[in-house]
Amino acid sequence: MKTNPLKGMKDYLPAEQALRDYVQGRILETYRASGFERISTPMLEDMENLDKSDGGDNLNLIFKVLKRGDKLASAIASGNEKDLSDMGLRYDLTLPLSRYYAANKDKLPSPFKVIQTDRVFRAERPQKGRMREFVQCDIDILGDGSCNAEIELIDVTARALLNIGFDDFTVNINDRRLLRGMLTSMGFAPESLDSVCITFDKLDKIGAEGVAKELTEKECPAEAVAALSDFLAKGEFSLEAIGALCEDKSLAENLGKVIATVETLANGKYKIAYCPSLVRGQGYYTGMVFEVTCAAFSGAVAGGGRYDNMIGKFIGQQVPAVGFSIGFERICGILAEQGFAIPAQKPKMALLYLPDADFAQVLAKAATLRENYTVTVLPQAKKLGKQFGTLENQGFAAVAFADNDDVKTLGANS
Amino acid sequence: MKTNPLKGMKDYLPAEQALRDYVQGRILETYRASGFERISTPMLEDMENLDKSDGGDNLNLIFKVLKRGDKLASAIASGNEKDLSDMGLRYDLTLPLSRYYAANKDKLPSPFKVIQTDRVFRAERPQKGRMREFVQCDIDILGDGSCNAEIELIDVTARALLNIGFDDFTVNINDRRLLRGMLTSMGFAPESLDSVCITFDKLDKIGAEGVAKELTEKECPAEAVAALSDFLAKGEFSLEAIGALCEDKSLAENLGKVIATVETLANGKYKIAYCPSLVRGQGYYTGMVFEVTCAAFSGAVAGGGRYDNMIGKFIGQQVPAVGFSIGFERICGILAEQGFAIPAQKPKMALLYLPDADFAQVLAKAATLRENYTVTVLPQAKKLGKQFGTLENQGFAAVAFADNDDVKTLGANS
Repeated sequence: MKTNPLKGMKDYLPAEQALRDYVQGRILETYRASGFERISTPMLEDMENLDKSDGGDNLNLIFKVLKRGDKLASAIASGNEKDLSDMGLRYDLTLPLSRYYAANKDKLPSPFKVIQTDRVFRAERPQKGRMREFVQCDIDILGDGSCNAEIELIDVTARALLNIGFDDFTVNINDRRLLRGMLTSMGFAPESLDSVCITFDKLDKIGAEGVAKELTEKECPAEAVAALSDFLAKGEFSLEAIGALCEDKSLAENLGKVIATVETLANGKYKIAYCPSLVRGQGYYTGMVFEVTCAAFSGAVAGGGRYDNMIGKFIGQQVPAVGFSIGFERICGILAEQGFAIPAQKPKMALLYLPDADFAQVLAKAATLRENYTVTVLPQAKKLGKQFGTLENQGFAAVAFADNDDVKTLGANS
Repeated sequence: MKTNPLKGMKDYLPAEQALRDYVQGRILETYRASGFERISTPMLEDMENLDKSDGGDNLNLIFKVLKRGDKLASAIASGNEKDLSDMGLRYDLTLPLSRYYAANKDKLPSPFKVIQTDRVFRAERPQKGRMREFVQCDIDILGDGSCNAEIELIDVTARALLNIGFDDFTVNINDRRLLRGMLTSMGFAPESLDSVCITFDKLDKIGAEGVAKELTEKECPAEAVAALSDFLAKGEFSLEAIGALCEDKSLAENLGKVIATVETLANGKYKIAYCPSLVRGQGYYTGMVFEVTCAAFSGAVAGGGRYDNMIGKFIGQQVPAVGFSIGFERICGILAEQGFAIPAQKPKMALLYLPDADFAQVLAKAATLRENYTVTVLPQAKKLGKQFGTLENQGFAAVAFADNDDVKTLGANS
């Protein structure tokens, strides 16, 4: 039989799992103290729902579950690939949340401030830091169309990161509509905006000339490309300058308000910055989008945005929604690389017993020692010195014995 | 789009999830204090491993995942159902643990005392109390062949149940080898023992005559059936009487030792009873088996046993193993039916703000109130009396206001 986990999936050793449980615990602690409530949905969703969701590239990465019984037999007979499967493993927690809200909205408070932290699945080509099964850690506010929802999600997410021990991070923020408004004002066609945004997002890498070149290759109108180049040449990427180009003046005003409010709340503990090129991948975002970056690591450690149209697909009535997701795997990976030590709980003690010990007495002694220690009951080895070394390597801080009152302190955690 | 979860799977509302998190937290607390360590494995396992496991009926209930890309195209062309899938959702946590131990044994302590609590999947016909996705909550000891492992698992599991608030339960225990030894001594053929055990297990329901009738129908030797009937007529189901019929006298001795030791540890808080007909379903059990029953509920709330041959299938070398699984869904169901109230954490407070409020100040005020409350920030409704009623129904204990220092106590939890 095969002993390794499946490609792109992972077994977690006790120390790795302890770190994961610790990180999740600290995140949940912050979320819950702020009045957010945890829910849970099945790992599997109806295949039609998944197919119709705005998941972009993720739709190609769904693990599909085979039909069963007679339904499978007739699907095989049809020879049609689409027929073979009626459910799939979820690729994110946003589609299940939207379905959940539609199914249960009469039983839920409004606005609904919700926590989800659980596994999702994507059939990606496995590579470092990209797995086929991974944990997402989301908070969402459903039913609040004001930008207070964005402010609160940023505040709570930032406090969760601080609570884990992260600092020196920046919340980057944009409103997709600002970028689109600016590009529209310059003469780019509405239907080309997604494609133009993708190019514009590369500004840092390819520079203003590179952007102009790529847009020309994409056959954008010459006047529009020239207008954008002029704008870039001026180097005026301020919220005021971009907002002035948009028809809807409230966009820049609201984004400015969010930034100013978060700056007050952050009180210097973290930064917030307007990032005019930020778009983020998901097709379902409709307004503000945000992303947390750390100077010390490339890539984002958290991201989210507003998706006001998703829930309407289920209930035919728009429900405003904003979400912010902490990159749980990324956070755990960074902490592990840094050799992060989980703050001390009760120290680990091994209670050793000999073969002839009265095991009821051994376990009773363990019970009393548990007041001050996490106690593991173990058979005493013949070579006691070697056993001490092994136990020390396993993180035990002390050894006690079933047949006497000695306590030996090991050099663990030193 | 469809709003309901898939058949046999469940969305959990905030109050339901809070109960689940509470129960899991209390169980983990007991397990961890006893030196058990949590691990985690992927939801998906290789299809061949699943097929070769001794899962009994569960093998027919595996959700299989469709192959992808070229592999799928050629599988469809072959028209062979078995070819369509290369992985499946796990149906329990024991097969994944055995694979995990084989893959990681050099990095794990011995004996390895391990916690697993996570979702498993079975494509059952949905019915009350039987779901297609559910949580299992297991502890196992790998690498200890002595019956101290059984004693410790029973002690820890019973303490976990007491810690959740369960009492008045009985741990029923048997050794499969005792039952088989007795039946062999009576003249039943070795290859018929599984089938005879299934009939014997019905003793409570169909009585001694019913058992004799069914065994005769199964064409067991008349002398064997007569010997069993004589034995049953005597009504001597004591461990001594059954042990005396077995060739291996250590079986009854060890089981007696486990019962006596657990009785001492239980100290009257729960009961342990020899149950000569207990078999339990899984094909992989090799020795003692146990099951926890409550007088107040039919069916078991926990079960387990020794499975010394499973890990050997992966590494070609026998590793003794015992496991005990708490019926997490059953426990949560019973507590919910009883209207169990989760012990008080910080009381819930709503901090209400008006549309013109400075939201940075609102969130800053929430932060200070969080010292004593779980604080949810909410827009203040026009009809304040109605809002108080809604909040009280949602379990809020108090209301504070962004624009003044009033605190209104609600009748929640009264």
